[in-house]
Amino acid sequence: MLGNTIGRMFRVTACGESYGDALLCIVDGVPAGMELTDGEIQVELDRRRPGQTPLDSPRKETDQVKIVSGLLEGKTTGAPVGMIIYNVDRHDIHVQQYRDVKDLIRPGHAEYTYIVKYGEYADWCGAGRASGRETCMRVAAGALAKKILAGEGIKVVGYTKSCMGIAAENIPPFEKIEEEARKNMIICPDQEAAKRMIDRVLEIKDEGETAGGSIEIIARGVPAGLGEPVFDKLQACLAHALMSIAAIKGLEFGAGFKVAEMKGSECNDFPYLDENRKVRFRTNNAGGILGGISNGEDIVMRLAVKPTPTVSVEQPTIDMAKMEETTLGAITRRDPTLLSRILPVAESMVAITLVDHLLMWRGYDAMQKFENPWK
Amino acid sequence: MLGNTIGRMFRVTACGESYGDALLCIVDGVPAGMELTDGEIQVELDRRRPGQTPLDSPRKETDQVKIVSGLLEGKTTGAPVGMIIYNVDRHDIHVQQYRDVKDLIRPGHAEYTYIVKYGEYADWCGAGRASGRETCMRVAAGALAKKILAGEGIKVVGYTKSCMGIAAENIPPFEKIEEEARKNMIICPDQEAAKRMIDRVLEIKDEGETAGGSIEIIARGVPAGLGEPVFDKLQACLAHALMSIAAIKGLEFGAGFKVAEMKGSECNDFPYLDENRKVRFRTNNAGGILGGISNGEDIVMRLAVKPTPTVSVEQPTIDMAKMEETTLGAITRRDPTLLSRILPVAESMVAITLVDHLLMWRGYDAMQKFENPWK
Amino acid sequence: MLGNTIGRMFRVTACGESYGDALLCIVDGVPAGMELTDGEIQVELDRRRPGQTPLDSPRKETDQVKIVSGLLEGKTTGAPVGMIIYNVDRHDIHVQQYRDVKDLIRPGHAEYTYIVKYGEYADWCGAGRASGRETCMRVAAGALAKKILAGEGIKVVGYTKSCMGIAAENIPPFEKIEEEARKNMIICPDQEAAKRMIDRVLEIKDEGETAGGSIEIIARGVPAGLGEPVFDKLQACLAHALMSIAAIKGLEFGAGFKVAEMKGSECNDFPYLDENRKVRFRTNNAGGILGGISNGEDIVMRLAVKPTPTVSVEQPTIDMAKMEETTLGAITRRDPTLLSRILPVAESMVAITLVDHLLMWRGYDAMQKFENPWK
Amino acid sequence: MLGNTIGRMFRVTACGESYGDALLCIVDGVPAGMELTDGEIQVELDRRRPGQTPLDSPRKETDQVKIVSGLLEGKTTGAPVGMIIYNVDRHDIHVQQYRDVKDLIRPGHAEYTYIVKYGEYADWCGAGRASGRETCMRVAAGALAKKILAGEGIKVVGYTKSCMGIAAENIPPFEKIEEEARKNMIICPDQEAAKRMIDRVLEIKDEGETAGGSIEIIARGVPAGLGEPVFDKLQACLAHALMSIAAIKGLEFGAGFKVAEMKGSECNDFPYLDENRKVRFRTNNAGGILGGISNGEDIVMRLAVKPTPTVSVEQPTIDMAKMEETTLGAITRRDPTLLSRILPVAESMVAITLVDHLLMWRGYDAMQKFENPWK
Repeated sequence: MLGNTIGRMFRVTACGESYGDALLCIVDGVPAGMELTDGEIQVELDRRRPGQTPLDSPRKETDQVKIVSGLLEGKTTGAPVGMIIYNVDRHDIHVQQYRDVKDLIRPGHAEYTYIVKYGEYADWCGAGRASGRETCMRVAAGALAKKILAGEGIKVVGYTKSCMGIAAENIPPFEKIEEEARKNMIICPDQEAAKRMIDRVLEIKDEGETAGGSIEIIARGVPAGLGEPVFDKLQACLAHALMSIAAIKGLEFGAGFKVAEMKGSECNDFPYLDENRKVRFRTNNAGGILGGISNGEDIVMRLAVKPTPTVSVEQPTIDMAKMEETTLGAITRRDPTLLSRILPVAESMVAITLVDHLLMWRGYDAMQKFENPWK
Repeated sequence: MLGNTIGRMFRVTACGESYGDALLCIVDGVPAGMELTDGEIQVELDRRRPGQTPLDSPRKETDQVKIVSGLLEGKTTGAPVGMIIYNVDRHDIHVQQYRDVKDLIRPGHAEYTYIVKYGEYADWCGAGRASGRETCMRVAAGALAKKILAGEGIKVVGYTKSCMGIAAENIPPFEKIEEEARKNMIICPDQEAAKRMIDRVLEIKDEGETAGGSIEIIARGVPAGLGEPVFDKLQACLAHALMSIAAIKGLEFGAGFKVAEMKGSECNDFPYLDENRKVRFRTNNAGGILGGISNGEDIVMRLAVKPTPTVSVEQPTIDMAKMEETTLGAITRRDPTLLSRILPVAESMVAITLVDHLLMWRGYDAMQKFENPWK
Repeated sequence: MLGNTIGRMFRVTACGESYGDALLCIVDGVPAGMELTDGEIQVELDRRRPGQTPLDSPRKETDQVKIVSGLLEGKTTGAPVGMIIYNVDRHDIHVQQYRDVKDLIRPGHAEYTYIVKYGEYADWCGAGRASGRETCMRVAAGALAKKILAGEGIKVVGYTKSCMGIAAENIPPFEKIEEEARKNMIICPDQEAAKRMIDRVLEIKDEGETAGGSIEIIARGVPAGLGEPVFDKLQACLAHALMSIAAIKGLEFGAGFKVAEMKGSECNDFPYLDENRKVRFRTNNAGGILGGISNGEDIVMRLAVKPTPTVSVEQPTIDMAKMEETTLGAITRRDPTLLSRILPVAESMVAITLVDHLLMWRGYDAMQKFENPWK
Repeated sequence: MLGNTIGRMFRVTACGESYGDALLCIVDGVPAGMELTDGEIQVELDRRRPGQTPLDSPRKETDQVKIVSGLLEGKTTGAPVGMIIYNVDRHDIHVQQYRDVKDLIRPGHAEYTYIVKYGEYADWCGAGRASGRETCMRVAAGALAKKILAGEGIKVVGYTKSCMGIAAENIPPFEKIEEEARKNMIICPDQEAAKRMIDRVLEIKDEGETAGGSIEIIARGVPAGLGEPVFDKLQACLAHALMSIAAIKGLEFGAGFKVAEMKGSECNDFPYLDENRKVRFRTNNAGGILGGISNGEDIVMRLAVKPTPTVSVEQPTIDMAKMEETTLGAITRRDPTLLSRILPVAESMVAITLVDHLLMWRGYDAMQKFENPWK
């Protein structure tokens, strides 16, 4: 396996599986002199933690994070921040459940491709590294990234946009989104829509099924200038980071797929000068990015989240040991919908990418010798 | 500027602007012993070349590519392949046109963010590196990547899926798509839809406007096993490569945004054994990727393409030198729609990414010491 | 701080400081299906462990390593291998010793440059990440790399070549070096020279001083073909890895600095065909690398190791808080010479680099479609 | 072939062979707003150009460089700088000479390893990419890097330190080295030693042989703070860059191999406060780097340069086509010593590495929110 590191300058490297002893994460590129506590990381982890509402998997992981390096007397030293989360809710009964079906491809899961890639040694226990469990460390690193962003006046907020065709429509102003969204367990700031979404998911859960949906992530306060013009456009790096989350099947920036029906002058965002003579844009079809570079407007992304593939319904499958077709019934614990738990993960990937680009841009920019009145 | 290289092992590095002397491209990671001619690259470049139909910009670039390194007696030597394309259709009159409006932000274009990033030194002439002109070299490198993929039995084909709400619906089998699509200038294999799309674009062009749409790219023959399970999932790297193309505002894999309304068992693709006892899937909602790794089915991507931002309609804008609001009228040459010209670019980015992953996977796999009967 | 990851495909990422809670290491690119135990890693760590002989620092770290991910039932799964080593020999009295001199630059140490780089937040406690303590994880990752190399028939062995002008001259055949070298505490296979070296170091230790020397590392069994011809020549990547070890001030391959006095035909190694009609070379001035690529002969490197900078002698220095000149007397624990403890570190960096190149080469080579009778 | 790019943020990518049509180079990470002309690059290229003195190869390449991108009206735009050098001194007679011996391994050259790696497709004509010809583009990129460094007050100067046992001993102050060294054709600032070196090389040339030697490179003005503490120590990255130059077999920083005979307090450099209350060091055994980070003193490196492997003396070799032993007589043009021509190449690799680290450090540093009085 390759690719357990993301980022160029702000680099997150992680390991750990669903049923391994622990997950580790090493975050490189953390500035010195920043206060940091386990508790601040824990706050974000607790949002992702399972077993909290009827919409989550009943797995009881405390996800207690411990920072073991990079700190001295409560402040970062510049050294990489190392974090450990031990897996605690591992039981022989669950291992046995996995062992019993280890040769069966679970539809919608990664078993088949893992077996093709790693042979019989592919981790069959709780999906190994293909489990959503690995996203813990994305959230831990994301919490650190968010703290760095806060120092730059940047905030990343996500919420559930739709679920099984029920759309959030009554979205409060940015400042209120987080507060409103967290009032319900599907993390949707439109309370009325949230209620309908939750009812629908619980209904689907009762059928032994799971529910798809979509989320929106907004980054506010990103200064104009982030992103590299060609292969590392800001949207390209964000797309890389976001599409690396399992279960995401689609991604839009700004107007997204609606541009396919727009004329040029409908799609273009027209600039104006605000009261501070700062360049702003009247609309945000671009989603805050022009030519691969942030333009100072909100960066707005929408993600399609597939339903959890684990269902209680009998499904056709293949026994890879016997190489014969068979069926697979109900198995183990799962989330009735991934929406609320995927939100902190997606926010984290956005935050990590923004810090990485800040580091790159600041370095490049510091080498430019001229005064730039427009910056 | 950073980020003019893409890929880890198969690496494409490019430079060149709209009104510079030449574009260069260096492709690293090319295997030795492969026949290669300028002509083979040219075939793909000719698909992207402007000035060929009423749907393209009238700019007359011949885009003549010359391979200057990496070949000996018609075969690759393993050394990096270097390519040059000289810009030929540059005229003082156009330079003057750009100079006249160099302080005005062209709505929907990159000027504002470039000025913020590079100050007054930002290339105002034909959009510099933000011009679609840079995509020449993506296509040249893509042609090379496609040739490598052909040797592996992999083919990447794209076509126009929709334009201004008119959708291609009658899609022929994969083998016929390319032939059918190239029968019309909007590169859509549904001839009837194509006709309506073209009529609509020409209508819009007459208004001085431009048209958005969407494209679909399919990669067939990709063996199961490509892609890395965590941060470098195959879809993540494809998303990076594809979202690095200017004008793309949305991206879907397989069922894409439709998963937001699906239940688990509707979304899951069920495996079966085909006549050769090979694992196949009855549906392809996953778009050919499970757990970040190709599963042997077609990799299917859809991209939202925004309308060309250059229009003849008067638009509000800002004069950055005077820092005052003003308007901008008709300027220079443009494509009435980007759809047909963006297709070879998108195919190229997919091909480049696949070769990169083949190199990574083959290296990793060669280090595994066991027999893997499922590969 | 950046740069806590090394390697392109086989990637080692580490964190942890001298007086932090723990050191972590994540190794990416490990093939699946390989048996691996904590004990195998521990064997190599025990070679680097302090407090074992009068030549080492008296610090008592057990350096107990625990693998927490990447394994299932004793075999690697392909997932990244995560390792933890907790720091146990940390005492308030030592912390206080460091606190007392935290504003004083320790000559030959990294304090000054760390303060310039990280300000007052630079880790003053036991040198933080500048401590030799970080090399634990190089050795742990190196043990894993050596195991992979063993499967390829490659072995990396190092020994003390000289110390304070006393040179090892009677070097046994490669197969015997390890056994002979480990017979004495300075790890030198020439027993007579070893005795004189040890006596000299103990004498110097009694003066409150420390001793410099040099080591030689040999990699045998490396197949011809590893290394990339231009910027990533095998010697360039090995030099990067080896010069990243603190205390190394010089590096030679093959004949090394002796080439400065050679004529062309003296320096050239002449090829011949051995009894198996395999190409071999009569001499090895090249140190096993031609044109940046291994030629099948032993890869031979020599490294200059500076004396431990911590001494008991009073030394001039600067108080960075007061910005005034002062002196610094005896402080804390140290190794009288770094030679024996640096050996497993240097071997590890060589092993890590070789695995990385094997992965790159195998991937590239697998894409070449021709038969190569010379490989 | 991989590895034709070097650098993380300031990235140089090159291609081109000895007998190909042209060499290309793309330099990414160039700040905007910098004046730049072909002529400035040419000055450095002319230092490396062959055919200028009896110590060089008689090959007559004009090495005329043309910048084709990244400039607008004489200033950099931030876009990557692309450069072309056409090969002009290619003659059928030389191609035929190479063809005649294409199956023979030239001792000390890369043929054998290239054939192992690329099979019969390895470039046999003038050594392809293994030729010193590729270093043109290192020098071109280095000229650009030097210009950036000049804007930061950093200068990189190299000179011949020894040749065939004759050492330069009378070294003028740094400011005078360049002027004095360029007074003679072996580029040694000790005129008396230079004369003896030249006489010795000409004598050796008359024998049909070639001469080894060593060079020293000094970087002055590097601010304290460059380099990353662990795997990307400044000396590690410099070592990577320098050891990527063919013919270099050894490398030292500061006291180099002399540290092997030093005691701790002899090797340590003691800090003091200069008249401006700036921290300086009384000696420079460290070679300007402590803990992997520059300390503000001169960065001093010495490199062992092997004799040109091409000689006129009959040498034993192998015919790879027939797989039989044979001999190889006099062939083609060569440099009697590489010393003078390798100097601009080595300076360039140092300059490129320093710019890369400046970009990384500046980016990181800009994220630190505290005042650092020691910087």
